[in-house]
Amino acid sequence: MKITSLTDTISLKRQLEGGNEEQLKTVRGVLQDVRENGDAALRKYSEMWDGILLDDFRVTQNEIDNAVLNFDPQLKQDLEEAAANIRYYHEAQKRDGYKLPIDNGSWLGQRIIPLDAVGLYVPGGLAAYPSSVLMNVIPAQVTGVERIVITSPAGKNGKLPDAVLVAASILGVREIYKVGGAQAIAALAYGTETIAPVDKITGPGNIFVALAKREVFGEVAIDMIAGPSEIAVLADETAYADEIAADLLSQAEHDELACAVLITTSERLAQDVALEVERQLSTLPKEAIARKSIENFGQIYVAKDLEQAIQAVNSLAPEHLEVVTANAEEDSLKIRHAGAIFIGRYSSEPVGDYFAGTNHVLPTNSTARFASGLNVDDFIKRTNVVYYTEKTWEESAPKIARLARMEGLEGHARAVESRGWTKGDK
Amino acid sequence: MKITSLTDTISLKRQLEGGNEEQLKTVRGVLQDVRENGDAALRKYSEMWDGILLDDFRVTQNEIDNAVLNFDPQLKQDLEEAAANIRYYHEAQKRDGYKLPIDNGSWLGQRIIPLDAVGLYVPGGLAAYPSSVLMNVIPAQVTGVERIVITSPAGKNGKLPDAVLVAASILGVREIYKVGGAQAIAALAYGTETIAPVDKITGPGNIFVALAKREVFGEVAIDMIAGPSEIAVLADETAYADEIAADLLSQAEHDELACAVLITTSERLAQDVALEVERQLSTLPKEAIARKSIENFGQIYVAKDLEQAIQAVNSLAPEHLEVVTANAEEDSLKIRHAGAIFIGRYSSEPVGDYFAGTNHVLPTNSTARFASGLNVDDFIKRTNVVYYTEKTWEESAPKIARLARMEGLEGHARAVESRGWTKGDK
Repeated sequence: MKITSLTDTISLKRQLEGGNEEQLKTVRGVLQDVRENGDAALRKYSEMWDGILLDDFRVTQNEIDNAVLNFDPQLKQDLEEAAANIRYYHEAQKRDGYKLPIDNGSWLGQRIIPLDAVGLYVPGGLAAYPSSVLMNVIPAQVTGVERIVITSPAGKNGKLPDAVLVAASILGVREIYKVGGAQAIAALAYGTETIAPVDKITGPGNIFVALAKREVFGEVAIDMIAGPSEIAVLADETAYADEIAADLLSQAEHDELACAVLITTSERLAQDVALEVERQLSTLPKEAIARKSIENFGQIYVAKDLEQAIQAVNSLAPEHLEVVTANAEEDSLKIRHAGAIFIGRYSSEPVGDYFAGTNHVLPTNSTARFASGLNVDDFIKRTNVVYYTEKTWEESAPKIARLARMEGLEGHARAVESRGWTKGDK
Repeated sequence: MKITSLTDTISLKRQLEGGNEEQLKTVRGVLQDVRENGDAALRKYSEMWDGILLDDFRVTQNEIDNAVLNFDPQLKQDLEEAAANIRYYHEAQKRDGYKLPIDNGSWLGQRIIPLDAVGLYVPGGLAAYPSSVLMNVIPAQVTGVERIVITSPAGKNGKLPDAVLVAASILGVREIYKVGGAQAIAALAYGTETIAPVDKITGPGNIFVALAKREVFGEVAIDMIAGPSEIAVLADETAYADEIAADLLSQAEHDELACAVLITTSERLAQDVALEVERQLSTLPKEAIARKSIENFGQIYVAKDLEQAIQAVNSLAPEHLEVVTANAEEDSLKIRHAGAIFIGRYSSEPVGDYFAGTNHVLPTNSTARFASGLNVDDFIKRTNVVYYTEKTWEESAPKIARLARMEGLEGHARAVESRGWTKGDK
């Protein structure tokens, strides 16, 4: 890993692949086809791209039960414990609306209402990601969303991975479809004969899925379009180089475009971590990916003091931040911009990916400056409520009419005044 | 206004103008120019499009003071009272993060952090919109955003409208720029020599502003892209036709694409409102606009019962909903999808546009199914925090490592296990 002295301007931002014209054209074609031809289009694309012919997209209860039976009971228990932790963390985010009295018996309110229906896209491919099921479904369940749908491309055997079905089963999600790609996003947004549309689509996916989500945005809500993983570690001389190196590599192994950065006040630690990263890389199963990530985006910065280091972290606004310093909790309070913060030696970042309870869907590419990780508020909306009594109306109407006329909106003024046109006689 | 029997499928959705290729090309050119040439580009476009040559974009304290001196004291007092009401309503939305204990001295937290800097775009044109200043600035101030910037195109006299400066002055906003159009959005997103960049841009604007906001989205956050105004009224035989008609027209006068809809269980009210709308239209200053809106998008639906009417409102998911029925509050509780609800005869919709305290920036075009009006949460972000003690790590590490290996992420497993590699010896 490269080691440099910290200057004032460092950035995590990468020019990320936004999809080319050809891909966008394909996606738009798929969206239109599914909107017009429903299930028939889903079947066509499943055969064309996933190489499977499906009569029925819906996963049966039998398939779910079999997945649970086949599954390692120890892993199932681990998933259950993770689910309980995630639920515990997100329950604390729930909140009620309010009803504020104003004068004369009038009141203003805010109602919090869960979305009716949400869809989670779970990517297919070589690995299964049950953790993604837990992280996306649980916040929706905590808010009271009634209908939660999962869709994911089937493998060559026409099935979804056991791990995904087991995670869904643990959460009680039973509406699961074997549809992947842009066609799955289209089905969730527009609906087909089999799949009723949803109000919000979450979950990661390949470039076609990401483009499809961007295209249907507005028709339905979407979560963020997640970029490659990022980790920044803020460490002083009290940190252990082998642990920091292992944590940096845990994110580097995700993606060649992943970004792992150490910012430290210790020249010695910088040197040791660079050596450790090299040593550990050589035995990592995903060495090729991680090495590319480290070579292209990995960086060790030596700061002249902690203050400069903290300032640098804030300018990065990383997705994940570990603070491994002598006064880690105190130092962490000076961080204004990070998706998630892991405090102290024992809070290794993967703890949050799987188990601790915090959400692992987090803002990337410096958007932590203004964006938050997935949370319970992503699955509710707020409705403003106004209740005016006659007395409040009487006192306010002249003021409101003046303000409306100042903005040239006579119709607004007349509407408010209309209650007095034939007052008492109606 | 057309009167029809209510069928099951009604919709407010209109195919809205998304801007053409030519406009998008222009906007992209402006954005790049401002990114590269900063203030010089701002000057160029101000001269080209607004016809004014400015040395300095920043509004001086002297200009603000003069605006206040020139301003009608009664209107200033009305604005101050509106500001106090808006602040009162939004204060109730503030909330703290949390710190949840888990076993062994470990904890999970959520920190709520206000954005560093936000920019509000205020449109120019023939009218001034001080209410827009109040509605956008106050929620940001309530959260504790430190830097709030306003930008708006200057008139031919090289000045901003007094009303806008007075509203800003009441709120204590002092960083105000005379820049409009796509170039203003570029300045807020990328920064120039004079204008430091912000983290989020809010506020309405013409098609060039809307396109520019879409383009910079990701680089910075934006609020929703607001569509033309909408009002739905749910009324029974207890409502007064002249009042309902006036309220429908208050939104129709905004825009030829605005949408005003009455859903009623009373055939008589339907007839009376249709007549009243025609009668009131004839004396409305903005008759031409309102008439187009009513002709193209106005509609009166007669429902067979209240249940069918409520179901129809939920399928519309209107921006504004008035409930004017015998049991208005009770009936309003059955509404799941609306940006704002106005309960009872005296809660005329413009009450919320100016004065009651609720926000008037609301989701349009049926997006109230999943979106909320502007609120305090739009100006904060949440950071997840994990603190694990050695004991919690020890108990969790094997479980986390198993879950990571199940997903094929050996590096994650090793990171968590790394704390034990030479345990006790370090």
